Amino acid sequence: MLHPSRDQIQLVDVFAALGHPVRVQIVRALASGEELFCGEVVPDVPKSTLTGHWRALREAGVIYQRPEGRKLFIRLRRDDLDARFPGLVELVLAEEQAAS
Amino acid sequence: MLHPSRDQIQLVDVFAALGHPVRVQIVRALASGEELFCGEVVPDVPKSTLTGHWRALREAGVIYQRPEGRKLFIRLRRDDLDARFPGLVELVLAEEQAAS
Repeated sequence: MLHPSRDQIQLVDVFAALGHPVRVQIVRALASGEELFCGEVVPDVPKSTLTGHWRALREAGVIYQRPEGRKLFIRLRRDDLDARFPGLVELVLAEEQAAS
Repeated sequence: MLHPSRDQIQLVDVFAALGHPVRVQIVRALASGEELFCGEVVPDVPKSTLTGHWRALREAGVIYQRPEGRKLFIRLRRDDLDARFPGLVELVLAEEQAAS
């Protein structure tokens, strides 16, 4: 399961990964930093469509996926994103407040 | 020629528009705020591929296109982007410095 290192994370890849409403929703759901079971991140999104979203976010360096037994746990790579692109995650969260 | 108003610009659309190396390159080329003739923004990119990039950036609210006679002028909607998503354009420009 490929996870780019912090230094390998590219802004253009992060933009591409975040350029989808479900993937923005995932980032917001993970914003607390807590690791969540993949089934509880965005429970309203059909599971069949999520596999591609996890991969896109993981390969871009936005999330970290950790298998444990038959379960998959997900967390936002907030430290890495904040270090590389200060303010980016805050923008995503601020937009949610503006929209609600 | 559709240009969303400032209030209509959506972060997810901006992310999707910026999720391509050429489109990030275009934003950097326009960062000064100066309006450029479309042929001089990214002169190393084949013109045939640019039409789709202008449209993606325009429809997301990232650039403004102004036809004048048979020419097309382009500028970054920096004021609108800074007002809606403070720090986003700076992130794009900072990454350029880090990469060079």
